[in-house]
Amino acid sequence: MSSPSGRSGLHPGTVDMTHGGGGRAMTDLIEDLFRRHLTNPILDQGHDAGVFDVPPGRLAMSTDAHVVSPLFFPGGNIGSLAVHGTLNDLAMAGAKPVSMTAGFILEEGYPLSDLERIVISMAEAAREAGVPVIAGDTKVVEKGKGDGVFITTAGIGVVPENVAISPAAARPGQVVLLSGPIGDHGVAILSKRENLEFETEIRSDSAALHGLVDAMISAVPHIAVLRDPTRGGLATALNEIAHASRVGCVLHEEDIPVRPDVQAACELLGLDPLYVANEGKLICICEAGDADRLLDVMRSHPLAMQAAKIGDIVEDDDCMVTMQTGFGGARVVDWPSGEQLPRIC
Amino acid sequence: MSSPSGRSGLHPGTVDMTHGGGGRAMTDLIEDLFRRHLTNPILDQGHDAGVFDVPPGRLAMSTDAHVVSPLFFPGGNIGSLAVHGTLNDLAMAGAKPVSMTAGFILEEGYPLSDLERIVISMAEAAREAGVPVIAGDTKVVEKGKGDGVFITTAGIGVVPENVAISPAAARPGQVVLLSGPIGDHGVAILSKRENLEFETEIRSDSAALHGLVDAMISAVPHIAVLRDPTRGGLATALNEIAHASRVGCVLHEEDIPVRPDVQAACELLGLDPLYVANEGKLICICEAGDADRLLDVMRSHPLAMQAAKIGDIVEDDDCMVTMQTGFGGARVVDWPSGEQLPRIC
Repeated sequence: MSSPSGRSGLHPGTVDMTHGGGGRAMTDLIEDLFRRHLTNPILDQGHDAGVFDVPPGRLAMSTDAHVVSPLFFPGGNIGSLAVHGTLNDLAMAGAKPVSMTAGFILEEGYPLSDLERIVISMAEAAREAGVPVIAGDTKVVEKGKGDGVFITTAGIGVVPENVAISPAAARPGQVVLLSGPIGDHGVAILSKRENLEFETEIRSDSAALHGLVDAMISAVPHIAVLRDPTRGGLATALNEIAHASRVGCVLHEEDIPVRPDVQAACELLGLDPLYVANEGKLICICEAGDADRLLDVMRSHPLAMQAAKIGDIVEDDDCMVTMQTGFGGARVVDWPSGEQLPRIC
Repeated sequence: MSSPSGRSGLHPGTVDMTHGGGGRAMTDLIEDLFRRHLTNPILDQGHDAGVFDVPPGRLAMSTDAHVVSPLFFPGGNIGSLAVHGTLNDLAMAGAKPVSMTAGFILEEGYPLSDLERIVISMAEAAREAGVPVIAGDTKVVEKGKGDGVFITTAGIGVVPENVAISPAAARPGQVVLLSGPIGDHGVAILSKRENLEFETEIRSDSAALHGLVDAMISAVPHIAVLRDPTRGGLATALNEIAHASRVGCVLHEEDIPVRPDVQAACELLGLDPLYVANEGKLICICEAGDADRLLDVMRSHPLAMQAAKIGDIVEDDDCMVTMQTGFGGARVVDWPSGEQLPRIC
């Protein structure tokens, strides 16, 4: 099977209802478009289910539905995002991803050439991550009953024996590390959606974090908490952890990295970067004595070169997240009450 | 946590965009509606990924996107269907299902009380099957960008060591068994969609088949092919198998069970039951000498009491499926060329 990446216009036409009907048109679409790009020995078995070997032990399993709008954005598209989203959920449980599935819901009339670009991105992201898409499903809905393409991925991974990462494992005295600047993904999506132009293009940070996590766990197996601050951003993720662990969290404002262009865009858009989604960043909560070692490991990885210690876990029966500002003040970093950014992932 | 099944009107109001925003409204929806009904020790860990033990060996993994319209139909709804669909994909690989995930795409404005009915059905189907939903995700799209509720489930299962079921394993001399009457699901959906009334209500056959498969494999581990004839029906499933195995298939028309009311409805609707979707039936291809033993096992199971031998696998380089009719004639049972029934599952 030759690589199709260089070809364009391979699939003229648009999705129609026959592509979801179970007949020849559907089989052709699956063979010509999905299987061709996502090819791997397990998918190629042609089962509805992919079958493969796993070592004994603990598995992690996760799913993510993706409805991002627009489907294409600086730094990625729904295809690569759907791979990264599920791989990151697994990585945040300390798991080494093994395989993924992908369920597509296509809207009648969607251009097949754009669908192919999405599937190629998905295939590239899977290949780069070293994790195959081993089973899939395609459904078609009438025009006006969907929005182009929705992709729901699921994944499984193997959890190393000595790892017990959990959002409920944060303890007072531990510290909060962040792998890099926040807000890039959300601002990239919203800028594209609103047709905003900035001096420099702000790109999504969408990336698969399991390689970074693997390096971190190899250095410090007893990491307490890992979390990717996606929808709702850093503020929501930390509130969830504080709530699950029954602890408080004190952040240091000047230590939280935000790119100047993202900061400027947030001010223009009336957003607080703390609440804006990321797709290639992680929070790590660990013993204070392990922080420097982990920061060294993180900063030597291409996805966490700007890693920083941003806060401390403290005793607090009210499970509050607070922020110490540059001028000695402090404020509560609350849960977002309503909608921040719809359809951000 | 008390059982909520008896309560109604628990969730007034409708889905709004804040339910997908990553903030408190989303957390409340997940806690009050999804986690409460789907509760199990792994889901209750509160990870984005569920973590659990598996025995060593081969795993099967599968996914199904569900866009059925209408969402509620005689014999089930999208919640129970989403569980059955994925469990059946696993069972058709001979796997014993272990766990599932569920990704929900909700349309703004959808009644929360109906969503709760769907989640309760999903929880009941999972409980009945003995397979927990261990992780999930919820997204919300604007009104007019979805159609109420779409659910994509994924599942994994353990494949017993001595089992090697594959759509490519059919061989000349083997026989084709069918677990019961065909067409019920498709006709139930279409009757409801078109507001057709028949003397007796035609109900979907939606059911989880892994218990039946377990009994069949215990009796005859070396079954060649299992397949659930869903979208595209029996005709499409057999054409796919013939194509994958490079064999022909000869069916005997009078041996294929179809309920009289389903037959009558198909005539009214201009449908051929051979092409109509099923959600609780399976095709089994096995050695001729194992057929009686398998039929005994199947007929003593509540989901296959009308199991029958319906055809033979033959040599045929053209991989044709043909039908011998009652009057000694024969006709080709081709792939459906276009759409039979959109949004049937």
